[in-house]
Amino acid sequence: MVTLKDITYAQKVLQGDIRKTDIFYASNILCDNEIYLKTENLQVTGSFKARGAAYMISQLTEEEKACGIIACSAGNHAQGVARAAQKKGIKCTICMPDGAPISKVSATKSYGAEICLVPGAYDDAYAKAVELQKETGATFVHPYNDDLVIAGQGTIGLEILEQMPDVDAVIVPIGGGGLLAGVACAIKGMKPDVKVYGVQAAKAPAMYNSFKAGELQSTDTVDTFADGIAVKSPGDLTFEYISKYVDDVCTVTEDETAAAILMLLEKQKIMAEGAGATAVAAAYYNKFNLKGKKVCAIVSGGNIDINILNRVITRGLVMSGRRSTVTLALTDKPGQLNEVAEIYGKLGGNILDVYHSISDTNMAINSCFLRVTAETRDEAHIAEIKKALSEAGFEIIS
Amino acid sequence: MVTLKDITYAQKVLQGDIRKTDIFYASNILCDNEIYLKTENLQVTGSFKARGAAYMISQLTEEEKACGIIACSAGNHAQGVARAAQKKGIKCTICMPDGAPISKVSATKSYGAEICLVPGAYDDAYAKAVELQKETGATFVHPYNDDLVIAGQGTIGLEILEQMPDVDAVIVPIGGGGLLAGVACAIKGMKPDVKVYGVQAAKAPAMYNSFKAGELQSTDTVDTFADGIAVKSPGDLTFEYISKYVDDVCTVTEDETAAAILMLLEKQKIMAEGAGATAVAAAYYNKFNLKGKKVCAIVSGGNIDINILNRVITRGLVMSGRRSTVTLALTDKPGQLNEVAEIYGKLGGNILDVYHSISDTNMAINSCFLRVTAETRDEAHIAEIKKALSEAGFEIIS
Repeated sequence: MVTLKDITYAQKVLQGDIRKTDIFYASNILCDNEIYLKTENLQVTGSFKARGAAYMISQLTEEEKACGIIACSAGNHAQGVARAAQKKGIKCTICMPDGAPISKVSATKSYGAEICLVPGAYDDAYAKAVELQKETGATFVHPYNDDLVIAGQGTIGLEILEQMPDVDAVIVPIGGGGLLAGVACAIKGMKPDVKVYGVQAAKAPAMYNSFKAGELQSTDTVDTFADGIAVKSPGDLTFEYISKYVDDVCTVTEDETAAAILMLLEKQKIMAEGAGATAVAAAYYNKFNLKGKKVCAIVSGGNIDINILNRVITRGLVMSGRRSTVTLALTDKPGQLNEVAEIYGKLGGNILDVYHSISDTNMAINSCFLRVTAETRDEAHIAEIKKALSEAGFEIIS
Repeated sequence: MVTLKDITYAQKVLQGDIRKTDIFYASNILCDNEIYLKTENLQVTGSFKARGAAYMISQLTEEEKACGIIACSAGNHAQGVARAAQKKGIKCTICMPDGAPISKVSATKSYGAEICLVPGAYDDAYAKAVELQKETGATFVHPYNDDLVIAGQGTIGLEILEQMPDVDAVIVPIGGGGLLAGVACAIKGMKPDVKVYGVQAAKAPAMYNSFKAGELQSTDTVDTFADGIAVKSPGDLTFEYISKYVDDVCTVTEDETAAAILMLLEKQKIMAEGAGATAVAAAYYNKFNLKGKKVCAIVSGGNIDINILNRVITRGLVMSGRRSTVTLALTDKPGQLNEVAEIYGKLGGNILDVYHSISDTNMAINSCFLRVTAETRDEAHIAEIKKALSEAGFEIIS
């Protein structure tokens, strides 16, 4: 079992290698409680995974080091392991599913790891890693179900208590459970009165289900854009710690997570990945009834694919009325498009995209169809534009 | 004249009110020098402006406080002033041009300021502020050309030397010049050997021109998306300090600034606004020949309009080959679109947008026109898709 002493020792070992990331008050995210951000997205490699990997690898014997290490991951664990191995001069092989985002593959490569791209999904890459491990005798670095890895992640708990002595509650994202297990172990060991909560994506709820059922459960599928916590089978070891130390676990929806990403970006100027924003989402949407409390949300990582970020922002813009799409029926005669464009211009709606077509089979034969996408200020602004269009005689379809 | 003693005093006054923002090594932005980030985008109100405003306002007499304060700004200065006034319980009026982004208006309102939206541009809002100032006897808080404001901004220089004792050079964004004047004054006062550089947007180069000419110059127009430093007339006071203390000044292009925003977001997980990214751009593109040096870039703010961010990201995606638009000529017969879609699917190009039209007047009468926008991995991936399309007999127009 990991003890507070182990975590304190890990902290000593990691000193100088791992960043003691800042905690700051999210003064622009106003809700029922005060949210403080533990910015592990600003950790080296862009996620907390650098801690557990570095500590685990630091504890290998010289003989083990000589045989190299191997890991399987499409994301943050890969980068954490590769960086730690490079620092110690250890040969490192990472198996990744061949559909892994190119940005994560190249980030991992940049730390000098040998990448083995395996056709198929995570499970196929895992099988290949096990096979390679047997062939080479390399040490397999598990992403979460390992006491050394858990102790490494636990150092975050010690930092939180030091940086924020008046913390009431800590909320931690859960994938396999390594981060929560370590943090809970550290915090309950030091200050049992501080509440420790876990949060999962509603579409990848294996540990949530396990916690509520009181026994380890897997899910058949995971379907969340928070790829860092899309885990089907949580660890038995991590489950044991979480059952013992954690006060409660909740889930957040995809939309809540997306909204939290946009809030962190726009209001607090930091980039979180899906997994990294779940704790903020849980705090903001008050999943644990922490009214008036000082809550520390661990922003566990920031390695989001930029294409996904682009979509999250676009969705956020639409949801907050800052981007709108209006579809109109026009009479098929000259000057109509001009009139519509004039209304947008006068009211300050900045047109981004226009689709004008006469061929829609649902329309009357002498009318046509116009779809306008524009930058708008808010819902009231959209309503103002729609009203002006109506008053000018245009039929608004949607 | 502002002295080191003034800045040290300002630091004492601001303690507990202003965040001592973190500095960290931008380990994933690799270039000729080592870039460290002074994260003033994570400052309260999202920019360094909170410092100068808070210090200036703290030095008002009780009588002055009773008459209130007034400022003119469409952006960061407005929020800094409003927050400081709210904290001291002082009545605060902010004049803003009526085209100011709704996000900045509402952020300023949220600090309890009275907003006076003035039709026209910044100059009109400024004239209105001067008029109101005369009527009410309120104190006008200048955004940069004021010794107290300069001393407040200078506290960043003291923090840099304390947090990064081995710094070789500091790069500072310039709008009116208040930040650079203060930081240069602090750093040259403490450690004259540390180089201090300024950077402007090439499309708003008034202080750059002034520095090079040795006399204060204005520009007629400014045309940069870095709205935080789009200043036509720099300050005479700030120019004096900059002439005296600063080693050199450069400019960066809009594309260099946009690339720096994307790098900071994707690789270091922080959100910078245009102005805030210019110092990183200057370091990355090695404008001052600092090969091998430890360079601290001040990320001065993060208050970017999310619509602009969306465009910066999209542009960055296109520039790095992660989004591509291919235009093809098709023969006008069934099955062609299907064939194209199949090629994209097989090669892993994720189609976002399709425009298919037969009516292009430049095309042969039996052909039509297809434009496909897709998420791609990189330039090589785009080339692979184009090659496959060519080999399947499609004519690529662009």
